[in-house]
Parts: sequence; structure tokens; C-alpha cells
Amino acid sequence: MKVVKFGGTSLATGAAVKQALNIITADPARQIVVVSAPGKRHDGDIKVTDLLIRYANETINGEDTAKTVQEIFERYETIGHFFDLPDEKIKIIKELLVDLPKKDYPNDEYLLAAFKAHGERLNARLIAMIMNHLGIKARFVDPTEAGIMVTGAPNDAIVNPETYRNLAGFKYEVYDRLVFPGFFGITPSGHIATFSRGGSDITGAILARGFHARLYENFTDVDAIFSANPNVVDNPEPIRTMTYREMRELSYAGFSVFHDEALIPAIQGQIPINVKNTHAPEKPGTMIVPEKGFKPENIITGVASGKHFSALYLHKYLLNKEAGFTLRILDILEKHNVPYEHMPSGIDDISIIFDKKFLNDQLIDVLCDEIQNKINPDRLEWIDDYSITMIVGEGMRDRVGAAAGILQPLADAHISLQMINQGASQISIMLGTKRADADKAVQVIYHQFFAN
Amino acid sequence: MKVVKFGGTSLATGAAVKQALNIITADPARQIVVVSAPGKRHDGDIKVTDLLIRYANETINGEDTAKTVQEIFERYETIGHFFDLPDEKIKIIKELLVDLPKKDYPNDEYLLAAFKAHGERLNARLIAMIMNHLGIKARFVDPTEAGIMVTGAPNDAIVNPETYRNLAGFKYEVYDRLVFPGFFGITPSGHIATFSRGGSDITGAILARGFHARLYENFTDVDAIFSANPNVVDNPEPIRTMTYREMRELSYAGFSVFHDEALIPAIQGQIPINVKNTHAPEKPGTMIVPEKGFKPENIITGVASGKHFSALYLHKYLLNKEAGFTLRILDILEKHNVPYEHMPSGIDDISIIFDKKFLNDQLIDVLCDEIQNKINPDRLEWIDDYSITMIVGEGMRDRVGAAAGILQPLADAHISLQMINQGASQISIMLGTKRADADKAVQVIYHQFFAN
Repeated sequence: MKVVKFGGTSLATGAAVKQALNIITADPARQIVVVSAPGKRHDGDIKVTDLLIRYANETINGEDTAKTVQEIFERYETIGHFFDLPDEKIKIIKELLVDLPKKDYPNDEYLLAAFKAHGERLNARLIAMIMNHLGIKARFVDPTEAGIMVTGAPNDAIVNPETYRNLAGFKYEVYDRLVFPGFFGITPSGHIATFSRGGSDITGAILARGFHARLYENFTDVDAIFSANPNVVDNPEPIRTMTYREMRELSYAGFSVFHDEALIPAIQGQIPINVKNTHAPEKPGTMIVPEKGFKPENIITGVASGKHFSALYLHKYLLNKEAGFTLRILDILEKHNVPYEHMPSGIDDISIIFDKKFLNDQLIDVLCDEIQNKINPDRLEWIDDYSITMIVGEGMRDRVGAAAGILQPLADAHISLQMINQGASQISIMLGTKRADADKAVQVIYHQFFAN
Repeated sequence: MKVVKFGGTSLATGAAVKQALNIITADPARQIVVVSAPGKRHDGDIKVTDLLIRYANETINGEDTAKTVQEIFERYETIGHFFDLPDEKIKIIKELLVDLPKKDYPNDEYLLAAFKAHGERLNARLIAMIMNHLGIKARFVDPTEAGIMVTGAPNDAIVNPETYRNLAGFKYEVYDRLVFPGFFGITPSGHIATFSRGGSDITGAILARGFHARLYENFTDVDAIFSANPNVVDNPEPIRTMTYREMRELSYAGFSVFHDEALIPAIQGQIPINVKNTHAPEKPGTMIVPEKGFKPENIITGVASGKHFSALYLHKYLLNKEAGFTLRILDILEKHNVPYEHMPSGIDDISIIFDKKFLNDQLIDVLCDEIQNKINPDRLEWIDDYSITMIVGEGMRDRVGAAAGILQPLADAHISLQMINQGASQISIMLGTKRADADKAVQVIYHQFFAN
């Protein structure tokens, strides 16, 4: 049995849904279907999820919602009409939409979560109706029914282990296709809470683990995961096979094809993931697997840059003899709820690297003030311009000289490195550069290792 | 005015002391003299400090001390006789030695400190007597008189800032030579406490700062500080000039010619240090200066390996999303009073590098148990075989490709790197290798950068 998940652009139009249904029916093992909300039909279009956020805000602000409701409904209606689904069946979508503001929500955050979740919830219901209309035996399954339980922030929830017990006890007929909405689960008190944005990948992985699928097929709008960002490198090579760890390390620096939180259930269940293109399902796509099982031909699998970092540099003489120095810094960060990414240290120096999304100008000043006062460094410098490039490959494991082979072409290209960090992970090298050099670093590494 | 300090081998025999006196009198600016205890006269000899430790232990254990006292006294007596110093002058040394057990000590640690300190204290007194006997106007100055105040552990004390106020107010005649014992100071309650072993370098630096010397000359038994350990590399090049930071970073990995704690007062007073050879004072030795003031010709200044490290490797999926992960590890280390050296981190991995001197087998087990239970990593591995090689040079600052130039020859020599860490310090690269590769790494780097 396989779990098959379709992304928003794969379900944006009737024609796209038809293509998805062709894929589903082409393989009887594709029994569990997970759907996203309808995405953009063309450049400049609005995703249904964004329309639902607008609807939620209008509701919260007591504004007129009729136009937004109609705009949302028409997206589903158009898809239904493509398959000649009768209006008396489609109208349930409108009713559910109109009813949304009448439900009880603990607060506006939960209201927002529930509205957003209906992008997937209504789409799964619609697609199940279409399938049955076309004679494909299918059943819509709501997370409430299957017991996909979550805890945490209403718009950034995490799965509760209870979910797997519930799924183990969930009975379904062997030849049914089950259509699940992605993106959300149910809190212990029965409210809707969503995963982080793009979270339908997570639902797919949870179901793959829960139902012990032998494969999790993730259909999206690209042929494969590429060894470098196609916006940075022309026609980068697709990755045929990569390990969970390679995916995870590349995600960190900006590979965004597959949601990295979705890797967790897949890893826990050791379910291989196949990222494929809805519009070219005959192509092999990218397999994400526990272990490669063979010595990789290429030393590196992929290279990516993330430009969303900053760093704090501290120098203090005999710093490394000062017990508790790092502990005091981490206490200050913890107090202000600021996580750090990495902390490379020299003998009397330490750099603390941050993800910029957890910072703002005021917070930076407060942190620097407090560290200056409590730690009293000889030198404190805030480096706003910080980019991290990850060069990742299982082929680097136990390969003497991998680092030298990576650094030499960067030196030849006159790219100045603010940080070189290798050691904790044997399958990657992490480099710090100025933001302006990040894309160039990716290009140089790509052309060095994938040129031919 | 210069402060001039002589190490133990430079004062081990009458002939050696004569050479030291020639050096002192050759320059009228050499007014402040700091002496160590007499060191080894030949391979297999015992340092006076070690004889004093034996004397302290015999005293603590209530054993007979007469033989040890005589052995210590004869070391000073032989030096005095070399200069025809009359016995009625030398006998004060014996009296002070014999009186040592009669003094009051808060505990055995203070007793040990006071006994050890007399290696220097008696030597300074003897040398001042010899100088006066030879017609060189000199005066013995005890730390009590000058106000060298210390706090902390009796055998690992640190200087108290009050010392500098005391030295500023200390009056001495301009043409006097003042002879200070190195290695120890006086606690607020008036007891003797010593610096860490080799601490006469520290006394010299404190006096250089306190008296605003224009140079601190440190006479030892080697021609210079070498760019690599002469036991690892044949005839390594001497370092003519290096910065405080270069010295500090090389000390970390095992350069032991100059005590690294002694750098602090020198840096605070911005006093240049000249490490020279007592037996070849005409050679320029090594200058340790605040800044080089010129672009160094060579990219690297020195290379050294320390083999006294271990590492703990942890892997946990989505580790870097777990707030407070590092904080909890550091809390565990703090609780067991174990400092860490470095903590390179990947995306889902972290390595914690320790100095083995703070660990033992039982402690390693306790730490690993506690980290396993409280942090629950997916993988925990203790790496006992860990060596750190430091490649240091101000010439690496802003030099694109320095790292590549260092790593390539190591790769060519098939040396496998467990860690590459560059970033916090711009003037060094830190490499982790297995212990068996450490010397080879030093040799490869040395021959790459100093071959001609």
C-alpha cells in the first residue's frame, strides 16, 4: 500500500485534478490519498488558503465576507463542474464555508486555524465526491474520524503519538481509496489546529507511518529535487536518490521542495519517500531513503545557500578558561526566547549564528547590551551580513580530502569564507559567506562537482 | 627600563648564574630581575622545586627531613661557593629552610605552596647576595614588601588588581638592580600562594606591567620560539616576531615555551615580550608584540598539536529545532564541574570537545548516562582518540583561500580530518584528527609553508 499526496498546484484546476486521478487509478496500491488546498492556477493567482485567511480576518473584524466566500466557493465549483458534478452535490461546500463563522472557537488563533484547514478539508470532500461520481470507489476521511491528534500552537501544531494508536485501530475496506485532507489535526479538546504552512506533506508522512505504507509518493510540480536551486544554477541535475539526512541538511539551507518536519514520521516508520511531478508521473523523481545502500558515485549530492542569518562575534582574552561563559550567554538568549543556530568557537573567540526570523532590531540591541554588561567581552561585533552554504553528500563520509576539494575552487573564485564548519556531521560542510557571495558559492561548487 | 626573567635551567649552576649576571649587567636598563628556582643541571637531575615538594610531604607526614633539607641547601651552597660567597652569608639559606616547618599554615595546601615558593624566594635572596658580593648594587625584594597580592587556590592563585596599585607606589633607587622571586604572591591574610607551575613567567609579566617596563625579556634555554615543536619537526624555523594572539592560540595546542597566563598582564600593559636564550643572548630570540605592524610574509606563523582531547558526539533528528538543547547539556557539564573546549554543531549533530585533564573514566560514564537520559539523543558516541592541531598566523587574516591551501596538503598526505573549525578566529584554523595523525599533520603543514 502506498500513500500518495498531491500539492496545491497539482489540484488547482479540473484538468490538474483529472491528472491526479489518473495517477491514483494507475496503481491499485495508491489507496491513501492526501490532498492540499487548490493552489495557484497561474502567476498572480491567489491560493485558496490565502483566500481563507482573508475570510478569517474579515470575520474577526466583523466585515462583509460574502464576496470572499463566493470567490472561494467558485474555485471548488469550477473544479466540480469540470467533472460534471451536479450542483446539489457541490452545494455542501458552500454550506460548510458559510457555516464556518458560526462555530465556537477558543480564540482568534483557533478561528484562523479552522478557516485555513478548510482549504484541504473541503478539497478532500470534493475530490472524494468527484471520484465516486466517476465510478472510483472512494471515501472522504476526516482527521476527526481517523484520530489525527495534535498539540501545541493552533497554527503550528505537532502530531501527538496517540495518532499512531488511532490509525492502527482505524478499519477501512481493502479496495477503498481513502481521501484525507492534509495540513491539520484535532486537539484533545476537539478543535482544529494546523501544522506549519505546507503541512500537507506532514499529514502524508503521518499516514504513511500510521498505515505502514511501503512508499510515500509526494506529487508536486517539479520533476525532482535538484542538486542546486534552479534559480541559481541553470538546469541543475535532478537527484535520483538521497538519504533522509541529506534531505534534512539541504532543507536547512533552503531546499524547500519537501517539508522537513514531514521527514520525522517517515524516518520513524522508515518509509521511503518518492517526490514526483504530477505533470510527468513517468519520470522517476527523487527517492528519499533511509540509507543509500551503495557507495555514491558523486562526492556531493546537493548544495544550497540560506541568506537568512546573522552572527554575533565575541572576543575575550582567556575566554576558554572562563567556566560557564557559554552558559551565561545561553541563559541570556533563553531569557529573550532567541534560539541560536551554531556556535563555532576559537581559543578566545566565539561566534553565535542566528536565524534572522527570530530577531528584530530592538532585540538585537537588547541582546548586545546584556551580553556586553554581563559577559564583558573585549570585543563584540554584530555581523548582519551572514549567509550559510551547505554542501551535502553521503559521498563525503570517510572520504579524505573532501573538504580540500570543496574549498579550493571557492578560493580560486576569490570567495572569502567567514566560517568553515565540518565535524559534527560527516556528510556535510557548512560555510559562512557574505550574502553577496552565497549564490556564487553555490554556482562554483555545482560546476566543480556536476560540470559533466 | 626592562624586566628580565631567568628560567630554572638558566640558574641551575654557578656557571649558569654567572652567564645570567653577564646578561643583566650588559644593559643598564635591565633593572628588574625575576628568578626561578634552580632547575635541572643535567638529564636525570631533580629540580629544587621538586625537592621542596618532597620536603613538604615529609613534613606533613612527620617524616625525617634532614637529608632533603641538606640536599636542597647544597644546591644553593654550590652556587654560592662558585662565586666565593662566604659561608656566613650562605647560612641564612639553611636557616630559612630549616625554619619552614615551624611557621603557621592554614592547611597542608598552604604549607605546600609556601615550601614550593622558597625555591624562588631563596634563589632571589642568594643571587642578590652574589651580586652585591661582586660589586653589583642589587637588592632582594620580597613579594610581601612590593605588595604582589594574590587570591584563589593556594597552589593556583591569580593576581589581585591591588598589586598594580602597590607596585605604582613602590619606591626604588634608579640605579639599583631589584631581584624578585618569581612564582608566588601573598594572600590578603598574609600567606604565601603560588601561581600555577612555571609561574615565574607570570611574576615577570606582572612586574613589567606594574613598573611600565618598555620590554619584558624572558631568558630560557632555547634560541627562540619555533614555528613547530622540534621534537616533531627537524630544525624548525625560529619565529622572529609574533603577536600575543598568535602566541595564545599556539600555546593552546601545546607551545609551552612561554606560560600563557603570563600573557595577560603583558597584554594589559601592552608590554612587548622577548623570549631569548641565556646561553646565546646575542641571538634575537622571539618578539611577542601587540600587533605585527606589517603584512606578514608567511601565511602561517606556527603549527602545533595537542593530543589531550576527547569528544562526545550526539545526533538527534531535528536537534536544531529543540530550544534549550545545548543549555541542558551545559547544565549537566556545569553540575559535574567539567569545562568543555569547543562545541561544533551541524544541523542535527553536535560534538563536544573536552580537555582530558578534566575527565576520568567514571566521570565519562556519569556524563554519558545523564546526557542519554535527559537529552535522549538518537546516537551518542564517546570519541576518546581526539587530537587538535592549530595552524596559526596573522597572515591568514583576510587571505582568501588560506584554508584550502592548508587542507590540500593534508588530503594529499591522506590525513583524515574529524573536524575543521574556522570562523571565530580569523588567524587560525583548528583541525581535529586521530592522535596517531597529529604529528604527521604538523609535519605536513610545516613542510608546506616553511619548506624553503
